[in-house]
Amino acid sequence: MSPFIAPVRDLRFVLEELLEHRSLALPGFDEASPDLVEAVLEEAAKLAGEAWAPLNASGDRQGSVRREDGGVTLPDGFAEAYRAYVEGGWNGIGVSQALGGQGLPEVVASSVQEMLHGANMALGLCPMLTAGAIEALAHHGSDALKATYLPRLVEGSWTGTMNLTEPQAGSDLSKVRTRAVPEDNHYRLFGQKIFITWGEHDASENIIHLVLARKPDAPEGNKGISLFLVPKFLVNDDGSLGERNDVTCASIEHKLGIHGSPTCTLSFGENDGAIGYLVGEEGRGLNHMFTMMNEARHKVGVQGIGVAERACQHAFAYALDRVQGRARGTEATISEHLDVRRMLLSMRARTDALRALALYCAAQLDVARHAADAAEREAAQARVDVLIPVVKAFSTDQAVEIASLGVQVHGGMGYIEETGAAQLLRDARIAPIYEGTNGIQALDLAGRKLSRDGGAALSGLIDEVEVTAGELRDSGELAALGESLEAGAADLRAAMALVLEAGRDPDSGPDAVQAYATPFLTLAGHVLCAWQMGRAALKARAALAEGSSEPFYRAKLAAADFALRQWLPLGRANRSVIEAGMQSLINFPVTAS
Amino acid sequence: MSPFIAPVRDLRFVLEELLEHRSLALPGFDEASPDLVEAVLEEAAKLAGEAWAPLNASGDRQGSVRREDGGVTLPDGFAEAYRAYVEGGWNGIGVSQALGGQGLPEVVASSVQEMLHGANMALGLCPMLTAGAIEALAHHGSDALKATYLPRLVEGSWTGTMNLTEPQAGSDLSKVRTRAVPEDNHYRLFGQKIFITWGEHDASENIIHLVLARKPDAPEGNKGISLFLVPKFLVNDDGSLGERNDVTCASIEHKLGIHGSPTCTLSFGENDGAIGYLVGEEGRGLNHMFTMMNEARHKVGVQGIGVAERACQHAFAYALDRVQGRARGTEATISEHLDVRRMLLSMRARTDALRALALYCAAQLDVARHAADAAEREAAQARVDVLIPVVKAFSTDQAVEIASLGVQVHGGMGYIEETGAAQLLRDARIAPIYEGTNGIQALDLAGRKLSRDGGAALSGLIDEVEVTAGELRDSGELAALGESLEAGAADLRAAMALVLEAGRDPDSGPDAVQAYATPFLTLAGHVLCAWQMGRAALKARAALAEGSSEPFYRAKLAAADFALRQWLPLGRANRSVIEAGMQSLINFPVTAS
Repeated sequence: MSPFIAPVRDLRFVLEELLEHRSLALPGFDEASPDLVEAVLEEAAKLAGEAWAPLNASGDRQGSVRREDGGVTLPDGFAEAYRAYVEGGWNGIGVSQALGGQGLPEVVASSVQEMLHGANMALGLCPMLTAGAIEALAHHGSDALKATYLPRLVEGSWTGTMNLTEPQAGSDLSKVRTRAVPEDNHYRLFGQKIFITWGEHDASENIIHLVLARKPDAPEGNKGISLFLVPKFLVNDDGSLGERNDVTCASIEHKLGIHGSPTCTLSFGENDGAIGYLVGEEGRGLNHMFTMMNEARHKVGVQGIGVAERACQHAFAYALDRVQGRARGTEATISEHLDVRRMLLSMRARTDALRALALYCAAQLDVARHAADAAEREAAQARVDVLIPVVKAFSTDQAVEIASLGVQVHGGMGYIEETGAAQLLRDARIAPIYEGTNGIQALDLAGRKLSRDGGAALSGLIDEVEVTAGELRDSGELAALGESLEAGAADLRAAMALVLEAGRDPDSGPDAVQAYATPFLTLAGHVLCAWQMGRAALKARAALAEGSSEPFYRAKLAAADFALRQWLPLGRANRSVIEAGMQSLINFPVTAS
Repeated sequence: MSPFIAPVRDLRFVLEELLEHRSLALPGFDEASPDLVEAVLEEAAKLAGEAWAPLNASGDRQGSVRREDGGVTLPDGFAEAYRAYVEGGWNGIGVSQALGGQGLPEVVASSVQEMLHGANMALGLCPMLTAGAIEALAHHGSDALKATYLPRLVEGSWTGTMNLTEPQAGSDLSKVRTRAVPEDNHYRLFGQKIFITWGEHDASENIIHLVLARKPDAPEGNKGISLFLVPKFLVNDDGSLGERNDVTCASIEHKLGIHGSPTCTLSFGENDGAIGYLVGEEGRGLNHMFTMMNEARHKVGVQGIGVAERACQHAFAYALDRVQGRARGTEATISEHLDVRRMLLSMRARTDALRALALYCAAQLDVARHAADAAEREAAQARVDVLIPVVKAFSTDQAVEIASLGVQVHGGMGYIEETGAAQLLRDARIAPIYEGTNGIQALDLAGRKLSRDGGAALSGLIDEVEVTAGELRDSGELAALGESLEAGAADLRAAMALVLEAGRDPDSGPDAVQAYATPFLTLAGHVLCAWQMGRAALKARAALAEGSSEPFYRAKLAAADFALRQWLPLGRANRSVIEAGMQSLINFPVTAS
């Protein structure tokens, strides 16, 4: 596996030039200067490149293994690499200072996350889940729970998990059956949860499980579900660790990828019942869980981008080294063959575009949380709500394609595991599935998110796409990019009108939203990513006009040209897909073969 | 893993209704009646479903393992399943009677191949390679070589391999270094070959390696390469097996998929040199090898379709069983949710379309070999030449996407290896790489195949697409399909003109062909597949109009509607990709990160 060089240059481009460091001007970020951000990125790049990345391939080979005693042995070096992360203070960088974190903007935290996932996705999952637990506790936990658990979670010396799925309850969580029986000031939980990421391990002193369960008298369906905190080790009043709780790892899944990440089946209450504490209100468990899932979805999108970046680097390194055939009359590395170059540029353009969109969304998150003006906060939150399903689903779908192209660039070597390209494809393939499948994301966008404001937030984004298209059109040399972007914006607007209209039909509406959801999200992803690359093209052209000779800007211009004129058209076709209607889907008799 | 039901119904639809059994009317197929074909398909389906398919998952888990003694242990049951295939007489069904085969048409042989690959791709590779060896020997071997080796290869009791790749010679075979030193009436070979499929095993009595190598005085480059036959066991004059030849399995690759297939590194001449015999003319080795590769490429396309079919069946079975959420007011299996239905119909429509195109190509192969009229043979061969790169590359690219969608339909379960969906993705991923990467296929189509006849053969195919579009347009209810197909045909014609024009430029031509090759092949694949589905729609509508109540025809109509109106538009966008030119590819400064 080639070394991983965290993409600091492009992250800085996005933060400094595309987002103009606007997050730093928000209230509460007085201490975060551009210099500090730069230093943070450089330090994170070291951690990612030097401590985490070298364990990626070996972690895949070894995998996490369940021991006879019910514990889990992580791959060599994982526990130490995680502790180095904790000791470096990385776990709290995006957490507010009020909760004991460093309170850096989300754009910075997201940048760091991308680097770490690019270095080692299986390891990156551990803090990702902890972040979700922090979020849920901070929003919904009692003061007592917060006092006991938050400081250690923020520090990272305790890690967190999300316990949602049961065999019969996957995308449909209303089917959760795990029981929580009241007893004194706590509950006893009984049941089995599957697919629990980092559900058991020894890299941290304690593991804090957040668990969806039902009280015995709870109603059926969503309203009977509450959220509980179940620590691996009970915590004494003085904060020290007490007895082992009745939650055990029954098995570890044998997965396609992310082998280093222990995905556990957890048994609650095989003996007396696992002691747990109610988080938030009874019957509001799903709601509380979704608070944390929304941000977790952004993080999964960022994770996809991290793996896509690594796949790019790996493919570029190979293509620059591998000599085959001739180009323009001389022996050449395959990077000189235009068909290979198409793959490389496609990988690079898409990865850059996804990154820019995800960080734009992170910047909106910063505004939504920190802007002084309530209306400004609300408007930003509305954009975040629309963007998160796009960032999650589109980034991860694309990440799989990018990793698959990375395999292809390697030719036969790509199919050999030792090369490392195949691992990236295997790892990436989970991201469109977890934290809500990409189909669920599409339904969220085309259904709930569009209908609740009649498309106003997305329409506002399309307005901005059109502004950028206009700037490109008026720019002279980038005019062709502007025309393409303008056409994309028109397609997205038309498709949105169609989805809204179809969704309003009281009979066929729900079906129509389902039928159009995925092509609609895909179209939105293409147009919004192309928008960011259009903005990048303007910045790159300005830098070159000002005399920069950095190849970075020439690469960015080529990537933007490719993104707008050779990638966007493929996405625009989704308008036709939607216009073709849903009758064939309804007519199709699904039979077993 | 769900059981595999070979797609006999759809194969029969294609052979009987789309191709109207025209191959059976050709000279030389007097004994092949429709009844016989039906019986062959039914018997092959049994072999595939009962003997081969049950070993697919266990073969993946166990893999082929190199033993200390240099031999290879196949997964349990593989040798027996292969022998059942040989004993059933399956190996020779497509081989001419003159060579000892049954001489059935290629459409029938391809149908059988698809079933076997769907059942067990790793095992299916063994006879696929043998077929290549038969082809090369039959065309280029001396009478003596043919007499000694062909009968056993046709029977299948000996298997064949293709030894092309060396570490420095992959897509660029001119770099082959293996040496062949003349001695008496044979040669002694020295060198190492990698990625040799079924390079060593005990399922057959002997293995016949066809090897590219150079004589010591041979010139550099392509012209110095000759083709040699190197048997694992030398063959005595009476046909009995003699000494073990000096060729050994040095290692077995650790691959992403097809674990059951032993992909070997073979060492030739570690001791005295491996005894080999020249096949065909000195210095024409690459040329002779390509004879067999052309048909092997068709077979790889068919293999992709087999895996796609299996992925469909596996996803359909899960979707029909898994209850999650509600549709139209009641609890529902996920097959009722239109977003899932979109995935299922997309998988089904694409698989059917790819199958119809691959069998159309096979039917043209039958005409090219057997038609009485020379002009007819030549015209068919010209179509075959254009179609083969499309069948190989487009079918296999799509197969990867279909298998990936199959994982997605399973949600979290799709990521767990025991479910079986992930294996299909891992297995399918090799097909776009071997037998010439899909990039090489695209160059073959957009370069050599288009330029040598100025696009005449492809233009003839587009004429036929337009005829079908006209029939659809005039049909009343299918008019929208006709409009879509007509637009696709126009895009393909325009793109062809552009590629031909750009390719004629003496300076930039070679680059342009490289730059446009992949989007051009993708566009061609979409339009030609949509054409076949347009023809299928007309047949299905006729059957329903005649009173058929078979769900098969309603499914086919829905699949055709989807293929023409929701899948084709995504492919048509490749015209815009080509029209955007190649400047961004040329401008892009490829650097390591």
